[in-house]
Amino acid sequence: MYKFGGWYQKNSINYYMSKGVVSKDEDYSQWYNDLVIKADMAEYSPVKGCMIIKPYGYSIWEKMQAVLDVMFKETGHVNAYFPLFIPKSFLSKEAAHVEGFAKECAVVTHYRLKNDGEGNIIVDPDAKLEEELIVRPTSETIIWNTYKGWIQSYRDLPILVNQWANVVRWEMRTRLFLRTTEFLWQEGHTAHATAEEAIEETEQMLNVYADFVENWLALPVIRGKKTANERFAGALDTYCIEALMQDGKALQAGTSHFLGQNFAKAFEVKFTNKENKLDYVWATSWGVSTRLIGALIMAHSDDAGLVLPPKLAPIQVVVVPIYKHEEELENIAAFVKGLTAELKAKNISVKFDKRDTHRPGAKFAEYELKGVPLRVAIGSRDMQNGTVELARRDTKTKETVAQEGLSAKIESLLEEIQQNIYQKALKFKTENTTEVDTYDEFKRLLDEQPGFLSAHWDGTPETEQQIKDETKATIRCIPLDNKQEDGKCILTGKPSSQRVIFARAY
Amino acid sequence: MYKFGGWYQKNSINYYMSKGVVSKDEDYSQWYNDLVIKADMAEYSPVKGCMIIKPYGYSIWEKMQAVLDVMFKETGHVNAYFPLFIPKSFLSKEAAHVEGFAKECAVVTHYRLKNDGEGNIIVDPDAKLEEELIVRPTSETIIWNTYKGWIQSYRDLPILVNQWANVVRWEMRTRLFLRTTEFLWQEGHTAHATAEEAIEETEQMLNVYADFVENWLALPVIRGKKTANERFAGALDTYCIEALMQDGKALQAGTSHFLGQNFAKAFEVKFTNKENKLDYVWATSWGVSTRLIGALIMAHSDDAGLVLPPKLAPIQVVVVPIYKHEEELENIAAFVKGLTAELKAKNISVKFDKRDTHRPGAKFAEYELKGVPLRVAIGSRDMQNGTVELARRDTKTKETVAQEGLSAKIESLLEEIQQNIYQKALKFKTENTTEVDTYDEFKRLLDEQPGFLSAHWDGTPETEQQIKDETKATIRCIPLDNKQEDGKCILTGKPSSQRVIFARAY
Repeated sequence: MYKFGGWYQKNSINYYMSKGVVSKDEDYSQWYNDLVIKADMAEYSPVKGCMIIKPYGYSIWEKMQAVLDVMFKETGHVNAYFPLFIPKSFLSKEAAHVEGFAKECAVVTHYRLKNDGEGNIIVDPDAKLEEELIVRPTSETIIWNTYKGWIQSYRDLPILVNQWANVVRWEMRTRLFLRTTEFLWQEGHTAHATAEEAIEETEQMLNVYADFVENWLALPVIRGKKTANERFAGALDTYCIEALMQDGKALQAGTSHFLGQNFAKAFEVKFTNKENKLDYVWATSWGVSTRLIGALIMAHSDDAGLVLPPKLAPIQVVVVPIYKHEEELENIAAFVKGLTAELKAKNISVKFDKRDTHRPGAKFAEYELKGVPLRVAIGSRDMQNGTVELARRDTKTKETVAQEGLSAKIESLLEEIQQNIYQKALKFKTENTTEVDTYDEFKRLLDEQPGFLSAHWDGTPETEQQIKDETKATIRCIPLDNKQEDGKCILTGKPSSQRVIFARAY
Repeated sequence: MYKFGGWYQKNSINYYMSKGVVSKDEDYSQWYNDLVIKADMAEYSPVKGCMIIKPYGYSIWEKMQAVLDVMFKETGHVNAYFPLFIPKSFLSKEAAHVEGFAKECAVVTHYRLKNDGEGNIIVDPDAKLEEELIVRPTSETIIWNTYKGWIQSYRDLPILVNQWANVVRWEMRTRLFLRTTEFLWQEGHTAHATAEEAIEETEQMLNVYADFVENWLALPVIRGKKTANERFAGALDTYCIEALMQDGKALQAGTSHFLGQNFAKAFEVKFTNKENKLDYVWATSWGVSTRLIGALIMAHSDDAGLVLPPKLAPIQVVVVPIYKHEEELENIAAFVKGLTAELKAKNISVKFDKRDTHRPGAKFAEYELKGVPLRVAIGSRDMQNGTVELARRDTKTKETVAQEGLSAKIESLLEEIQQNIYQKALKFKTENTTEVDTYDEFKRLLDEQPGFLSAHWDGTPETEQQIKDETKATIRCIPLDNKQEDGKCILTGKPSSQRVIFARAY
């Protein structure tokens, strides 16, 4: 374990438990890391770049999966499962694809360990694979090799398949949830008879992602297309949704690719079309990952801890009893039992924390840290008065309300909190999206008030690269709803017909 | 692809689609393989030993996951996720554990590919890992290394965590679902303050598995303990459920292990107990896998195809219209619309197959092959008479029933089918479980009427091994509800106090 050295030790749970959460303004990056670890979302593992998703963090992923899975099925998709390993030769079949992924592949070369006779476990040199296997960084190649056997005619199309899986991309600089060597995701892979139908699917899934991120993560996004430089390796067009984090950096929250006939050509997947002619099949792929959990944390949280939108919060309401004597607790517990039943009937998750090992104040801080949207505190006086104290995590406001009608009140408050978190993020995004017309202003804003910068660009990869080299800002996307507008490229002054969105990004 | 040669080609879908399903009595093994492939459950992949789980097969896994996940949560467990990779040194820390898994480990040695300058993609020799990583064959080691950071005192216990994941065990002889190099499973890993509590957990989870397999897969099992020879590598006790397949071979359907303090000692996981003394933590682990889908197919199916218990069938009811003219179909469709709504309200999944590209007979054969429990056929005369034809997959019986009250009739029939499939399997198990008192009889039955053989054994690993070497039969388990009974070992004649269950096994 210690051979992983400083990295592991410095990031171990004990290291963090001994310190508070650093403030967001002081060190945004450290604040994020502290939050993830102190709120029990995830921790680093001894395998470099891989994380352990702890139960609290994983339960958010489970909620995301459940919602997305329904959305995928409602749009006609089914799930399947393809192998973890991809023969090296498969990856090489699509030139741009292998170019994009070769540098970050985990390679399996042997299939056995053995005892060397001196008590050491070593890799058995006699168990070398004839052809190395790549741990999938994405599954286009193995899936299109499979589709070859599934498709003969247009009657076999479309194929609308999704896979929930783990993938591995060997990352040198990692960050919990946002960029890890192994991550969990879903990858949709569809096959179509026409380019139009494939493009329609690509756009449909982008809209599914945008709806999900806006309505469930309470995070407004820009829907757009990537420039050629930023496209998925092997795609003709990459659509994306881009969100803005509280430090003004962009985060790509989901992508949907129109792959054209590239993979069909690489794997010789042809079909007989309605005109009885042979043609290559048209493809899309689309994915979101556990990165979304990172976006969720970064976008809404504050110095006291997570702020979770109610729709994805593992615990939506926590009830903390305040009492001195056991009889008081019994009295409170009887009330809470009824409340819990009412809330469960409304599909609201509630936790009654009656631990006698922690004071109410410590419990308040714990649930604040964990981002529980609503806290109900009940003491003996409340029981006499028929009231409770309700505290909102998002606004940090408290009010005393009647016990009568409490579950209905909670239900509407949760709705309101979800909306409020979204509106706050939307306001932030609006205030931090700026039209810029000169390169000096562009650079000044990146340093002084980073955010989405809407600027003219001459459309060349060279200009895009030079801006990136000089400012670390990339073109996040060309928005789908862009208005046409004459202007001049901020770098070269050459003519441009539309603005694009620049930002520094995660 | 062709480098995988005969194996892949011979097992490709096209190879099978051109042939019928071989009869069960003629070649049981081939019958099983044909069924899996022709019913669209799974197919072989070009990665040796790895399979592709097709949408129809995967939807059964999704149903299994959904039910088990609720059962796990009802017994207090939560889900989490640990890394796919395990440092080689971790695996070596528990001596019996590494001994058990070393021979079947996929080993990652490099983390990058590169272009060799002549257009070939090769493994980059400069990207060799300092320590090799093992693709998890099971996660005890990485999880217990993590638990070390989670546990200080008895107040941190128990930890009740489950993981849904893929694992890899390099198998030389594979069989779809039953034994594959990569498979999907869940693995529970719990930590306890006392041996008693850990044993109670081990037994609880065995009972969860047995309930699930009996009530959902409609498959009766024997609950028992493994002998020392057959234990999980690193366990003090392995509990198992054993089911009987139609060829008289046993199939281990789930295991639950009492790991004692072995992994806590290997990873130095100590806690302060209630008496304020340091002690090692007690462990369990338990798992079931996609192997269950293989058991489901093998146990109930026949020469015409799958026979799926309604509770796990992806499609529970299929409706096939029989018509000549478009107006007839419209009439039928209007009725089916109402029926579908009624069935959906009862949570019964129904498919209306109105494809005009297939004749009714072809559809009947297809759903028979796919094991759909109930088929409703409706023609124009049925519409006039207010009737439908109902066909059961399990008994292959047909009856004409009234349209009125049809959804209630279907609901109760599905219940009846579930029970009937279970009772049939129970009868088979009872008839093929035989008490045997001599070795000659034992060997004769194994050849002539294989099944569970209940026999006396002297309790030594040597005798167990000799019987295995001579007959290929292993001790499947020592049943938990065993009655004590004096007898003599069938091989050595030495005294024995209880019978154990022998069988040849998958």
